[in-house]
Amino acid sequence: MSDTSIEAKILEQGKRIDPLLAELLPSDGPAHLAEHIAYHMETGGKRIRPALCLMTCEALGGNSEAAIPFAAAVELLHNMFLLHDDIQDGDEMRRNQPSLWKAFGVGNAINAGDYLLGRALQAVLRCPVGDAVRLKLLRLFLDTYERTVEGQALDLNARSDPHWGVERYMVMAELKTGHYLALGMVGGAIVADAPEATVECLRRMGENMGPAFQIRDDTIDLTAGKGRGGMKGCDIREGKPSILYAHALSHSMPAEQERLLQIMACPRGQTTEEDVAWVETLYERCGSVAFARETADKLIGQALDVLGQLPVEQQSALRGLVTFMAERTT
Amino acid sequence: MSDTSIEAKILEQGKRIDPLLAELLPSDGPAHLAEHIAYHMETGGKRIRPALCLMTCEALGGNSEAAIPFAAAVELLHNMFLLHDDIQDGDEMRRNQPSLWKAFGVGNAINAGDYLLGRALQAVLRCPVGDAVRLKLLRLFLDTYERTVEGQALDLNARSDPHWGVERYMVMAELKTGHYLALGMVGGAIVADAPEATVECLRRMGENMGPAFQIRDDTIDLTAGKGRGGMKGCDIREGKPSILYAHALSHSMPAEQERLLQIMACPRGQTTEEDVAWVETLYERCGSVAFARETADKLIGQALDVLGQLPVEQQSALRGLVTFMAERTT
Repeated sequence: MSDTSIEAKILEQGKRIDPLLAELLPSDGPAHLAEHIAYHMETGGKRIRPALCLMTCEALGGNSEAAIPFAAAVELLHNMFLLHDDIQDGDEMRRNQPSLWKAFGVGNAINAGDYLLGRALQAVLRCPVGDAVRLKLLRLFLDTYERTVEGQALDLNARSDPHWGVERYMVMAELKTGHYLALGMVGGAIVADAPEATVECLRRMGENMGPAFQIRDDTIDLTAGKGRGGMKGCDIREGKPSILYAHALSHSMPAEQERLLQIMACPRGQTTEEDVAWVETLYERCGSVAFARETADKLIGQALDVLGQLPVEQQSALRGLVTFMAERTT
Repeated sequence: MSDTSIEAKILEQGKRIDPLLAELLPSDGPAHLAEHIAYHMETGGKRIRPALCLMTCEALGGNSEAAIPFAAAVELLHNMFLLHDDIQDGDEMRRNQPSLWKAFGVGNAINAGDYLLGRALQAVLRCPVGDAVRLKLLRLFLDTYERTVEGQALDLNARSDPHWGVERYMVMAELKTGHYLALGMVGGAIVADAPEATVECLRRMGENMGPAFQIRDDTIDLTAGKGRGGMKGCDIREGKPSILYAHALSHSMPAEQERLLQIMACPRGQTTEEDVAWVETLYERCGSVAFARETADKLIGQALDVLGQLPVEQQSALRGLVTFMAERTT
């Protein structure tokens, strides 16, 4: 399949979870939750994660209809994390509108996130599979959820960590994104009753591809017109502990480290254009941008190597999907 | 059993979950989560909820050893809600120390709560019971969790609800506390493989007893020396939508309603002693305090009636526990 047709198929497959989402989140649902969640969910998302779940299930010979509840659970979890992350990171905008906490208060946004997690787990419980498989899906879902929260804990406290550097960044990125990215694919493989080796392979692929995505996202921030809202250097202004920051911190002189730490600790809105330009120059001079690109490429290469270890018929069934994902990160 | 010996037994039984809690939350656990959660959990709690779970299981002829993971899950859920509620309500103190969000920031407190919920669900998954029973426990746990979050949504938005009154208060209280209170007992009964009628009976008991507790808590706030930190009228200062507020709102004159709304909307710290005294007088004059006491008594009576519908041998096995709970609310 060509890239265009894969992308079209992903968009089409993603829509298959919509009826279940509407059932789990009816517009006349619980007061002050239904409307807040609708405010957040209506702005969309491309449903790439659920589509990958359904397509993996099908590629491995499963009945993707049975994976729909799990695919919906993945989408609900994703939105739960967005709601809580926006509060934690102080992000005031989400998908071109004020984020939920900004529009309806922190209390309501915490509560809406808590509710979405409940709905996600209820969706997993709805999978039309045997009890043993259902419990396996639940364990996968919960393990992934916990790893993501653990990664978020490292991320949130990175700026005050005196030992922050590339090593800790990689631990954080794998915890926060490595398990989460493959969740839909791994769940789809479990519903398809794929061999344990295949499930393990998808899991390891995610462990490489997730951090690659994250690192790619970090470098995009320095490309004019591609950063958030078309603005360059948002991560620097927000003090986000990116891989560039982690690398530069361990590859610069003490005086530079000190200024870098000061700029990153500076409250959002007080960072000057001069500060941003200085940090960008430091990142270039330390080779941090090149290092980030190489690291992402290496991780993608490892992910493709893992795929190559599968039986040939499974490789060909999954290659299109994996290549699509890989190309989104390079 | 006498009340004193029941209380002693509850304290002793509650301790049985400690080894599992220590295993689920090791002190060398995930960075920035282990230490934050330890900060919150070390201050204690009497573990009444888990004790009731174990004792109910035993009273109904079950092996309470098998209920320990569920009992631990109930305690973890309780603490998860405390962490998120403290942020939502702006409560700066918890068990005589700064609450987690106050000590380590809102982001870390949200994340610690998210993690505790994951741990709680993992505990449910550990119950040494068959897959079907394990899924039944998970469904119970999730349904209860969602109802509690729904109740919290009503509570959070009560002050801006133009139709707030006793009716909505009762819906809120049942959602927020009715399912949650009985969770341990219902779970204990399921582990004991009690008949569906017994499980249903415990559930209905909780639906009456939970709101009774909540209402009792609302009235205690007006009793000098018994309110939070020995201070009277904290709920008025904090604008908490108590049953007294709900009742007085629908039993006072328009001008009084207006002043009441203004005082409740007043930011914490700006409410004067005069305001508090005025609201207390209004509550007395509207008969709100008497109404609250009668409502709590009626609910407790209904809970005891439900117990009376059980087979005699189950009644005697549970009566001690239920009476202990009932007496805590009157």
